[in-house]
Amino acid sequence: MARPQEFDTQQVLRKAMAVFWEKGYEATSLADLMAATGLSKSSLYGSFGDKRELFLAAFDVYRQDRKRDMLHLLSVDPARNGIVSFYESLFADVDTEAAHNGCMSVNQAVEMAPRDLRVKDMVADDFRTIHEALTAAIKRGQQDGSIKNLSDAEDIASILVLAFPGLQLMARINVGGEAMNRNLNILMAQLD
Amino acid sequence: MARPQEFDTQQVLRKAMAVFWEKGYEATSLADLMAATGLSKSSLYGSFGDKRELFLAAFDVYRQDRKRDMLHLLSVDPARNGIVSFYESLFADVDTEAAHNGCMSVNQAVEMAPRDLRVKDMVADDFRTIHEALTAAIKRGQQDGSIKNLSDAEDIASILVLAFPGLQLMARINVGGEAMNRNLNILMAQLD
Repeated sequence: MARPQEFDTQQVLRKAMAVFWEKGYEATSLADLMAATGLSKSSLYGSFGDKRELFLAAFDVYRQDRKRDMLHLLSVDPARNGIVSFYESLFADVDTEAAHNGCMSVNQAVEMAPRDLRVKDMVADDFRTIHEALTAAIKRGQQDGSIKNLSDAEDIASILVLAFPGLQLMARINVGGEAMNRNLNILMAQLD
Repeated sequence: MARPQEFDTQQVLRKAMAVFWEKGYEATSLADLMAATGLSKSSLYGSFGDKRELFLAAFDVYRQDRKRDMLHLLSVDPARNGIVSFYESLFADVDTEAAHNGCMSVNQAVEMAPRDLRVKDMVADDFRTIHEALTAAIKRGQQDGSIKNLSDAEDIASILVLAFPGLQLMARINVGGEAMNRNLNILMAQLD
């Protein structure tokens, strides 16, 4: 009879995610993962397979978390406020000493997507999800009057999605809150 | 008397750059660098210092090359055509089997910038350079009549710069030529 699993899978995946998010896939060592989760190599890989499988499961936890956060922020009325809040949330801690991890999907579009089809599909799916959610929010804003730009909602959403990695990278290279706010305001003017 | 250097420094740096560009910093091994350049460890590190120093020199060759290419493309008249050509050049080979390395500066904003101040400054400098070059081109286009949008040239340039990493990442996750063209057209409509 198999020994019952003595740890909380979701909790372990969140701890592994934090390391992969901060360091990326390649720079994360087995020792880092063991230290973060408090588990031995045999517990970790026995439960999750190898490093890549553990990474994929941890990345998926990240994606579900962020999707839930995004839909929550975008649900605000009037819709324009929700969109602004969502973009502001991307660099909430830009002037603090906190690590600027940026968006894990953007990071993985760079690191793993070109050589791992599963990661590529996950990242492409994330971009589609953001585009769909923004399109719906823009349509709502055009109806509730908070968005004055009445051109095609999908096209407006495309500009916002295109700018998403750019804002993330600005946070990641720490350009400072003032420059981030200026760029955010210029981007949000697309809605007017 | 020191033995004269028996290789072309620029040529070696270009070969090292190609490996760092494709694989990133962490995933590039000394063996990769020796294979790409045909040099021994002692020749490589004797001439360039350690892996990081070699990387910084190779990255700088990349940045100078791209800056020259960008200024060349943007020098075309009327100015709007130059801007379109520059953005088209970002994903010229998106439908081929060629590796989608994306932009090395964007990649390094993700990989090294958060933990290496020199890389962070280089990437921030690249974003500034692109913004300045686009602002100048937009001003020219507003004068020569090819750009109908007469709002602040720096603000229009900011949107184009914000979208630059997004287009690079789309190429890197290989969304396909049709999606790239649709996004490019939506972005270039900012000039109208």
